[in-house]
Amino acid sequence: MGFSWSIIQKQRLKELNADEEQQNMLFEDKNERDRVFLELDRQLIKKGKERLDNLKNIERRPALAQLESKLVEALTSHGYVQVVTPIIIPKRSLAKMSIDDSHPLFSQVFWVDEKKCLRPMLAPNLYTLWKDLLRIWEKPIKIFEVGSCFRKESQGAHHLNEFTMLNVTVLGLPLEEREAWIEEMAELILKTAGISDYVLEKETSVVYGDTIDVVSGIELGSGAYGPHPLDQNWGIHDPWAGIGFGLERLLMIREGGQNIQRMSKSVTYLDGVRLNI
Amino acid sequence: MGFSWSIIQKQRLKELNADEEQQNMLFEDKNERDRVFLELDRQLIKKGKERLDNLKNIERRPALAQLESKLVEALTSHGYVQVVTPIIIPKRSLAKMSIDDSHPLFSQVFWVDEKKCLRPMLAPNLYTLWKDLLRIWEKPIKIFEVGSCFRKESQGAHHLNEFTMLNVTVLGLPLEEREAWIEEMAELILKTAGISDYVLEKETSVVYGDTIDVVSGIELGSGAYGPHPLDQNWGIHDPWAGIGFGLERLLMIREGGQNIQRMSKSVTYLDGVRLNI
Repeated sequence: MGFSWSIIQKQRLKELNADEEQQNMLFEDKNERDRVFLELDRQLIKKGKERLDNLKNIERRPALAQLESKLVEALTSHGYVQVVTPIIIPKRSLAKMSIDDSHPLFSQVFWVDEKKCLRPMLAPNLYTLWKDLLRIWEKPIKIFEVGSCFRKESQGAHHLNEFTMLNVTVLGLPLEEREAWIEEMAELILKTAGISDYVLEKETSVVYGDTIDVVSGIELGSGAYGPHPLDQNWGIHDPWAGIGFGLERLLMIREGGQNIQRMSKSVTYLDGVRLNI
Repeated sequence: MGFSWSIIQKQRLKELNADEEQQNMLFEDKNERDRVFLELDRQLIKKGKERLDNLKNIERRPALAQLESKLVEALTSHGYVQVVTPIIIPKRSLAKMSIDDSHPLFSQVFWVDEKKCLRPMLAPNLYTLWKDLLRIWEKPIKIFEVGSCFRKESQGAHHLNEFTMLNVTVLGLPLEEREAWIEEMAELILKTAGISDYVLEKETSVVYGDTIDVVSGIELGSGAYGPHPLDQNWGIHDPWAGIGFGLERLLMIREGGQNIQRMSKSVTYLDGVRLNI
């Protein structure tokens, strides 16, 4: 039982979202392997076309767009206010997140000119809004954003240069409620995303303080809380909690998929289906 | 009656979304003017705070996000399929739109590296999807996208560097139905956006063929149809029609506002209200 897929076959099976078992099949000889490949290729193409037919005739929205809407609905119905902020942010916003050229994230930032870049995260804009909203609204301030963020990644199976972040935050809650808030918010978001199998892992970081990662095989999201060393850069003194998720990762885990590209904003895939079928 | 607002007063009134009449008031003397300014400033701040309270307690989504959802609902219920495509696009996609360094739009493009830029329009990605979907779906292919586009604009009262486009397209319809399609789609979109007062203006362009602009004081959107000179770059031969709108402009016109920044993705304004109130 020594023959695995050829490199080209394996690549094609990944594109067509074959499951792990299918990707790791072994064969007695090459003829048998190539015969099974043709059959599997045919089946997976049929499955892809059925999903695209379903998109065209019934769903009419790709999973990524539907998940965004479901999260917005769940969060607003729990009293959180959606905000929509710019993708292009000033360099000084990065500096206030202490992301300078000694920070590992700095080299991953896309610059559009000397002073402006594409946001690698939603936090800087939310900090900016917090500061103003503290003067206008009573605490707790409960806001969230869903939007594209950008990092120069190696574009592996779990990373995208362009991905969709959700960040939910509460500013001005009692200190002792912060961890419970993160746990409850993780539950609400994962339930909305259709994921029930996950664990929370507490990590301690010298720079970022304690974080609570949400893990389901891979890291799906991460919670943090303050007061936090960065807060003073933004003039924030109240306790807060926040949690962030990558929507494409949520979809990849929910659908048991093998590659994150297929769930991303793409012209190569549509709603998880490779378009060269 | 010779005294108008001071420059600083006028700027502040614009920020607070004073209407045209309020912005053009004249006074007998400076004392009277400054007295009225204080009163108007107070009123406009009160109005802004009321809108933000309404956002916090009732709406929970800014007008821009709500409009996007309403348009998605209207279009999917009419059989159009939403797509979500990348913001970062390759230089060759611009070239296929014949946007090279002799094209007026070229200098407005934000580059993230030598070969990649931020999309200044949605059309290149939709052309790419059309080509694949023609092999998979029966005609007519009906797709749309709502998403951020980017242009280096002078950031005047009607332009934004980062704005939200809607593009609705149909590929493979009878030639004689294209203009009627544009008229009907303009009506559906403007009705959904709450705008009833507009006209369609047909323009002929040597490069882009005939276009049908949607005008309500300013240009809100523009329809186009093919076969079109650019189609051959994308391998498209079927007749098509499409229409595009800037969502922030739709909101500005609907709300009778004076500046487009207030309706944009922003950390200075939230749901149309200046946050330094």
